[in-house]
Amino acid sequence: MAKLTEFSLASLAELLDVELSGDPSVSVSSMATLGRARTGQLSFFSNPRYLADLQKTRASAVILHPDYREKYPGNCLLSASPYLSYAKASRLFEPRPIHTPAIDPRASIHPSARVDATATIHANVVIGANTFIGKAVTVGANSSIGADCRVGEGSVLHPNVVLYQGVNMGKRCCIHSGAVIGSDGFGFAQDDGKHIKIAQLGTVQIGDDVEIGAGSTVDRGALDDTIIEAGVKIDNLVQIAHNVRIGANTLICGCTGIAGSAVIGKNCTIAGGVGISNHVTVADGVTITAMSLVNRSITMQGMYSSGTFLTDTLTWRRNAVRFGQLDNISRRLRKIEKSSDKKDHGAAE
Amino acid sequence: MAKLTEFSLASLAELLDVELSGDPSVSVSSMATLGRARTGQLSFFSNPRYLADLQKTRASAVILHPDYREKYPGNCLLSASPYLSYAKASRLFEPRPIHTPAIDPRASIHPSARVDATATIHANVVIGANTFIGKAVTVGANSSIGADCRVGEGSVLHPNVVLYQGVNMGKRCCIHSGAVIGSDGFGFAQDDGKHIKIAQLGTVQIGDDVEIGAGSTVDRGALDDTIIEAGVKIDNLVQIAHNVRIGANTLICGCTGIAGSAVIGKNCTIAGGVGISNHVTVADGVTITAMSLVNRSITMQGMYSSGTFLTDTLTWRRNAVRFGQLDNISRRLRKIEKSSDKKDHGAAE
Amino acid sequence: MAKLTEFSLASLAELLDVELSGDPSVSVSSMATLGRARTGQLSFFSNPRYLADLQKTRASAVILHPDYREKYPGNCLLSASPYLSYAKASRLFEPRPIHTPAIDPRASIHPSARVDATATIHANVVIGANTFIGKAVTVGANSSIGADCRVGEGSVLHPNVVLYQGVNMGKRCCIHSGAVIGSDGFGFAQDDGKHIKIAQLGTVQIGDDVEIGAGSTVDRGALDDTIIEAGVKIDNLVQIAHNVRIGANTLICGCTGIAGSAVIGKNCTIAGGVGISNHVTVADGVTITAMSLVNRSITMQGMYSSGTFLTDTLTWRRNAVRFGQLDNISRRLRKIEKSSDKKDHGAAE
Repeated sequence: MAKLTEFSLASLAELLDVELSGDPSVSVSSMATLGRARTGQLSFFSNPRYLADLQKTRASAVILHPDYREKYPGNCLLSASPYLSYAKASRLFEPRPIHTPAIDPRASIHPSARVDATATIHANVVIGANTFIGKAVTVGANSSIGADCRVGEGSVLHPNVVLYQGVNMGKRCCIHSGAVIGSDGFGFAQDDGKHIKIAQLGTVQIGDDVEIGAGSTVDRGALDDTIIEAGVKIDNLVQIAHNVRIGANTLICGCTGIAGSAVIGKNCTIAGGVGISNHVTVADGVTITAMSLVNRSITMQGMYSSGTFLTDTLTWRRNAVRFGQLDNISRRLRKIEKSSDKKDHGAAE
Repeated sequence: MAKLTEFSLASLAELLDVELSGDPSVSVSSMATLGRARTGQLSFFSNPRYLADLQKTRASAVILHPDYREKYPGNCLLSASPYLSYAKASRLFEPRPIHTPAIDPRASIHPSARVDATATIHANVVIGANTFIGKAVTVGANSSIGADCRVGEGSVLHPNVVLYQGVNMGKRCCIHSGAVIGSDGFGFAQDDGKHIKIAQLGTVQIGDDVEIGAGSTVDRGALDDTIIEAGVKIDNLVQIAHNVRIGANTLICGCTGIAGSAVIGKNCTIAGGVGISNHVTVADGVTITAMSLVNRSITMQGMYSSGTFLTDTLTWRRNAVRFGQLDNISRRLRKIEKSSDKKDHGAAE
Repeated sequence: MAKLTEFSLASLAELLDVELSGDPSVSVSSMATLGRARTGQLSFFSNPRYLADLQKTRASAVILHPDYREKYPGNCLLSASPYLSYAKASRLFEPRPIHTPAIDPRASIHPSARVDATATIHANVVIGANTFIGKAVTVGANSSIGADCRVGEGSVLHPNVVLYQGVNMGKRCCIHSGAVIGSDGFGFAQDDGKHIKIAQLGTVQIGDDVEIGAGSTVDRGALDDTIIEAGVKIDNLVQIAHNVRIGANTLICGCTGIAGSAVIGKNCTIAGGVGISNHVTVADGVTITAMSLVNRSITMQGMYSSGTFLTDTLTWRRNAVRFGQLDNISRRLRKIEKSSDKKDHGAAE
């Protein structure tokens, strides 16, 4: 059972630290988009594209910027940052299972592990030797946590998460199902055509407030550690190789892969499907657009891209064939330019 | 133990609704390709490229089109659609564990969950409050199903699948191991350089006859739901972000990522490694070729591509350098054209 | 508890089969990079870029090539292949849980399965009928192994691994958490706009010494088997489709996808994020650079690439627009060349 949530606009205004314009006694119990909201629901307006929806909405109240107050006659929560206020409001309405902190009897916890009394450990969780589980941590069903790990206060591991031995995670982290943290880096030495595995002796250090998406993988370091700094948010199916360092508050979207020893700055935005080559360094504040390959270091803040635009396949194929002739095309152009210069010069004489 | 399967050609012809040409009493107990089939095996011929294999096959019977009857002297099952008949036949030979419907005593099922008496729940499955598991559903070992989910009749969840709270799945769905459905969408609001998580209050709606591959992830919606319509087939390691809608019977191949709020039409074919940007709309019946980036909406049926062709790396590098000069090349060409026009004009005077 | 490791340089020299130059009684208990090593640690020097680090290192001993002996006054282990010796040394220092082989009482093992007395089966592992688990195998917690599988001697399955029915794995394999082996290939036949599933009747054959990374997926064959030959190393989040064959000792980096029936040669290196189209053949010894699409067969050894270089987005966009005009640019250039030839010819007359 999820807990029931219902807030008066008066209390919402206080919780969100915004100004109420309307009836303080009206109450809302859930959120919806402007177009779908009904009586009893709270909505928000942050993108002018949806102005028509604002004017037709049936929501009981709307979070909006004071500049739009006159466009909407209903109950408003006036915010200088409507999208941020929406984020904060959304968390009030999140369904949360009601449970008293407890260790499910089907969990297997090593006698030397320390699990805080306020933590919740679900069925079939396995926790290894010497691992520490902090205050108010939740570990979802069927998760496997190796020895010598540390999971900081308030972190949530959803079901079927794996931490290998020695992973160190900060406070308030959120690890989604299927994520694997601390698996071996992909390191081999060649021995007469065969690949000799290099034991991965480092581990993974994860700062506070990090989110790691479903099915994402973070490898342990070869000798030093792989490091995910505080506030980093990683989407689903992202691969972080050994000895990578991700700077604080960087966002990494789905299906991106970051190869070994790459160093990504703080406050970067890496879009989906991006590849970052090994040993590359990316400066702070860099944005990489979707499906670009970063095969060299980036030393200046800015937005970077590679690839070509989408077209119909017939047109694309004709142009892609010409791409294979580009060096030739360029040389032929140069030749004509020279010949043309010469003629002009000749003509001038 | 898998059940033994053996069919006479007479019964196969009836089951597949095709015409038998040959000995009805011959029996087959498994399938193989033309090249590898031996006595007692059924094969099929649907691609003229394998004509030589047809003529040499040792299969006890072959599914083929009547047009090729004269090319093959052995026992035939004559089908207007040999590949479709192969698909139907393959399902007859699929090994299925023999088990009586049962709930393994090591499963953890919340008292308020309803599990149909004909369902099979394997060891260590965890099922949350108020969840409904329909008739003849199978849930594989070590799967975790949250509260308030609904799994429709005849669906199969393979081992180690995760459904978060509130996922609604239709009939006859097949979810492969490692898939995660209903994880949080990747949504944050900025607050002075930090990322404030937006609670993901929607869920995931999955129609009938949907297949989701191993390790694939489908995020829950932010406010509205993420929707996978009936008959959609999703391959392995595919990421579907929050609020995406996938139209009925669309195929999505492995390693593809679809970003938030994208709307994909019905009967599309999305090849492997494709990226689809957020808020993009793709019309019905569109095909996207492998590793293309769809960064704009597609309004007309057809086939679309981006990228360049593969060449040896030295040639590629020369051309890729010229790609970086393309705008310059184009301008220089324009200049020469103008100069040439002028001379021609001058010459004509 | 991990076992303590401490080696004298004399014993290390013997174990690694290298020459000691220095004090044989000095002992080391862990490894570190040159820059971070302290007293009691072993380091290695294999890349001349780190010469300054070598000269400043506080390591108690360094593995290096005899050519660099004079650059470093401390204790040395002299190796003709320092990187390979590092790989071998790293394995000596790997922490290994101390456990006596055992089957955890919370494992669910089918009565007909055979588990060698020297195997270790962790909590909540489920093992199906007729499966064979060889000598000294470890199966991590919450893993699910189907019926009729075979796991060869000395193999390690980390926690939360899934093997579907019938998977056959050689000796000394290492399968990382979240990997799924033997899931259904993505095969459907069309029936009036609907997709009829083709039962995947083959399985997966994995040779000796294969490593498969976290979250990677290997589909079972449609009729024949999917084959991963001995010594293949596969990184994280890699997708191998049905009926693929990967030749011995090939390396496949993270986020790569290989489509159905592709045949990859021996000793290939497939970088990260690569796509390989279905039915393509790749020769032995081929290298594919990151994020390339292999949409045709490669018959000769060598290095192959596709894509464009990364630039700032504004420059990229201008060039990418011109890519869409490439065929037109090429034709215009040809026209000018013809016109220029004609004039030259005319002028010569």
